[in-house]
Amino acid sequence: MTGSHQLVLQRIDALAKITDEPGRITRTFCSPAMRRANDLVAGWMRMAGMATREDAIGNLIGHYPGATPNAKTLIIGSHLDTVRNAGRFDGPLGVMLGVACVEQLYHSKTRPPFAIDVIGFADEEGVRYQSTYLGSRAVAGSFDLRDLKRKDPDGVTMAETISSFGGNPGAIKSAKYNPANLIGYLEAHIEQGPVLEERNHAVGIVTGIAGQTRARVTFTGRAGHAGTTPLPSRKDALCAAAEFIVGVEHLARENPGLMATVGQVVVEPNASNVIPGVVTVSVDVRHQLDSLREKAANSLRTFATLVAKPRGIKVSSQIVQQTASVPCSPEMTDLLTKSARKFQRNVIGLPSGAGHDAAVMAEITEMAMLFIRCKGGVSHHPDESVKVGDVRVALAVMSEFLRELAST
Amino acid sequence: MTGSHQLVLQRIDALAKITDEPGRITRTFCSPAMRRANDLVAGWMRMAGMATREDAIGNLIGHYPGATPNAKTLIIGSHLDTVRNAGRFDGPLGVMLGVACVEQLYHSKTRPPFAIDVIGFADEEGVRYQSTYLGSRAVAGSFDLRDLKRKDPDGVTMAETISSFGGNPGAIKSAKYNPANLIGYLEAHIEQGPVLEERNHAVGIVTGIAGQTRARVTFTGRAGHAGTTPLPSRKDALCAAAEFIVGVEHLARENPGLMATVGQVVVEPNASNVIPGVVTVSVDVRHQLDSLREKAANSLRTFATLVAKPRGIKVSSQIVQQTASVPCSPEMTDLLTKSARKFQRNVIGLPSGAGHDAAVMAEITEMAMLFIRCKGGVSHHPDESVKVGDVRVALAVMSEFLRELAST
Repeated sequence: MTGSHQLVLQRIDALAKITDEPGRITRTFCSPAMRRANDLVAGWMRMAGMATREDAIGNLIGHYPGATPNAKTLIIGSHLDTVRNAGRFDGPLGVMLGVACVEQLYHSKTRPPFAIDVIGFADEEGVRYQSTYLGSRAVAGSFDLRDLKRKDPDGVTMAETISSFGGNPGAIKSAKYNPANLIGYLEAHIEQGPVLEERNHAVGIVTGIAGQTRARVTFTGRAGHAGTTPLPSRKDALCAAAEFIVGVEHLARENPGLMATVGQVVVEPNASNVIPGVVTVSVDVRHQLDSLREKAANSLRTFATLVAKPRGIKVSSQIVQQTASVPCSPEMTDLLTKSARKFQRNVIGLPSGAGHDAAVMAEITEMAMLFIRCKGGVSHHPDESVKVGDVRVALAVMSEFLRELAST
Repeated sequence: MTGSHQLVLQRIDALAKITDEPGRITRTFCSPAMRRANDLVAGWMRMAGMATREDAIGNLIGHYPGATPNAKTLIIGSHLDTVRNAGRFDGPLGVMLGVACVEQLYHSKTRPPFAIDVIGFADEEGVRYQSTYLGSRAVAGSFDLRDLKRKDPDGVTMAETISSFGGNPGAIKSAKYNPANLIGYLEAHIEQGPVLEERNHAVGIVTGIAGQTRARVTFTGRAGHAGTTPLPSRKDALCAAAEFIVGVEHLARENPGLMATVGQVVVEPNASNVIPGVVTVSVDVRHQLDSLREKAANSLRTFATLVAKPRGIKVSSQIVQQTASVPCSPEMTDLLTKSARKFQRNVIGLPSGAGHDAAVMAEITEMAMLFIRCKGGVSHHPDESVKVGDVRVALAVMSEFLRELAST
C-alpha cells in the first residue's frame, strides 16, 4: 500500500507537469499553469476532508475544522508558484505535506482542538512582478496596494492579472487573517543549502530567517583601448571590482554565519579589447543578527572606497532592499524540535538564509519551520532532489507536532 | 588663406557627416555611406592631381604619377570605414593627410622619382563581416577568398555586398600590388593611447605593431543559493575569476610594455541571489616581443589553474586569436624620425598596441607609421579629438619625409 509520504511525492510529480513553459517547470503568479495547479491541489485538499476556497489574491486555502466551532486556526503553508526553470520541491513540498497531515487526521477521524488551514500561496518567488511574497503579504495584511499598478513584462497590471485569474484586486484586504484567531503558522521547506546533507540529517529545525541587505555597487573608471593604454594610465573599473569581490568573499570567510555574495556583474562596454569603464556588482549580505549584517554591509561600503580611491575610480553604492531577521517562535520551535527527536536521534537548529512565506506570516502569528534535506543543497534548479525517506520523516515529525500541539 | 592642414580638418568634418546611422558616425564596408564617402574623397583626390579608381574590393585609390613612367610606387593609406558610433579621425585622418601631401606636390608642380598611390581602404574595422583588414588584405594579396561567403547580420554575403557596391568579388586577386613595384607604405594614424599627450608631443614614430593573444578562460564552479550555502561549501566561479583578474593586472603592471586586459566578463546565471556557477572572461595580451607575449599568456594560463584548483573549480582556456608582432621598416622609420625632428624637438618611438592596415601591408613592402596625439587617448568614440596644430605638424613631417625620400 502506498504510504502518505509516497502520495506526497506522487502529487509533487503531478504538479511538476503543470507549467507555463513546456519542457521545464515555470509557474508564475496567476498564470494559466497556476490556475491548473490550484484546481488540482484543491481536489486533493477536498479528498483530505477540507473545504476549499481562493482568497482575493488567488491563494488556495483548504479548511479543516477543529473540534469546536470557534476553535482558533493553525496555518500550514508554503507556495505553489515557482521560479523559471525550477525544481519541483521548493514550495509544493510544504503544501503537500500540509495536505498529507490533514489527510491523516481525516482518515483517522481526528478533530484537533484547533482548525487547520492549509494554504498554497499564489506568489512567493516574485517572478512575474518582481515583488515577492504577494500571497503571504495579503494574508498577513501587509500587502502594498500600490503594487496592483505594477506591470508584468507584457504590460499587464497586477490588478488585471488578479481579476482575470478570478481574484478580486479591490478586496485584497479581505484576505487578511485576524491574528486573534490564529495559534500559529508552520512551514516545511527544502533546506536549499548543504548543511543537513553534510550532517546526514533528514530534517532540521529553523531557528530564524536571516536578515538581508541587497546592494548595488558601481565602480566608474574610464574605458580605453586595451592595446594602447599603458597600465599606469588606466582606470580599469573591472580590476577595482575584482579586488572588491575578493574582499567580499574574505569578509564572509572570516565571519562564520555571515553570507556575503556577489552574484551579478555588469561590465560596460564588455568588449574583449576595451578596458572596462563602468562595472556594477550586486552584493547580498545575510546574517541572523541584524547588527552584524549591518556592520558587514557598512564595512563593505568602506572597503569599496578603499579599493577604488588609489585607482582614481569613483564608487557609488545603493541599498536595493533591506529586511530584518525574523526569529522563529521559541515555543512552537521547541515543540517541533521535540517532535523531530522522536524520529531522528540528533536534531540541529539552523538559520534559514533564504526568505520564506514564514517570515511574512511571523508579522501576525507565531511561526515555526521545518527544513528537509535536499541533494547537494541545490534549489531553483531542475536538479532539486529530496529523498523518499526524508519526506517520510518530515511527515511523521509534522503529524507528531500536531498531536503534541493538540494535547497542550 | 586656409592652410593645407586646415583643409585636412575641414574634409574630415565633411566625411563625419557621411554615415549609415543618422546622429552618429558609422560607415561600414560597402555601405551606402561608404559609397558617398568614396565619391567625395575621389573628388578631392582629383583636385589634388590624382587619377582615381576603385579596385575589385572597393578600395579607393588615387594615383599620382612619378617623374618617370616606370617609377616605383609609395603607398600612403589608411581606412575610410569606421566602427559603430565612431570618432571622426580614426582612419580618415591618415587618408586626408595622404591627399594633402600629394596636393602640395601637385600645386608646387613637383614630381618625385616615385609614384604615390593614396589608398582609402574599404574595411579595416571589420564591423560588417567580423573580419578585419578586408581592404589591405586584398591589396597585400592575403585576402581569404572563403570570406566572400560570410554573411552580414542581414544575411547578405560579402560577395553580394561587393558586387552591389560596384566591385568584383570574382577578381579580388587583381587588387594585389606587385611587391617589386613598391618602395613602401606610409600610414598616419591617431595614437589611440595617452603616451604622446602625456609627453606633450604632437607626433611620435611607431616602432612596430604589437602581437596579440586573445583568449577566453572559463571557470566552472557550482551555482548555489546565496543565502543558504555556507562559505566552505561554495564553489564560487566569480571569486576565482576575480582573483584571476587581479592577477592579470598585476602581471601587466610588473612588466612594462606588456598589455594584459580582461575586458569581457560573462557570469552565469548572473542573479544577485545566486552564487555564480560559471564565469568566462576574455584575456587580451599584447607585447612588441612575441616571446614575451607568449610567455605572459602561458603564465596566465598557469595562474588561472593555481587560482581555481584549491577552490575545487575547473578551468578551461582557449586561444581565440593570435597574431605576431610586426616591426616597422628600420630605414623608413629612421627617415620618418629624422623628418619629425625638424618640426618637434624630441621625437619618441612607441609601439602600436592596436592593429592597423600597415600590419598587413608589411607583408609585401617596407612600412612606417606616424602617430598623432589624440585627446585623452580616446578612440572608437565620438569624443575622438585631435589638435589643429598637431595636424599641421603631421602634414609637415610627412611632406618632409617625401622630400627626403625623393632625394635618397
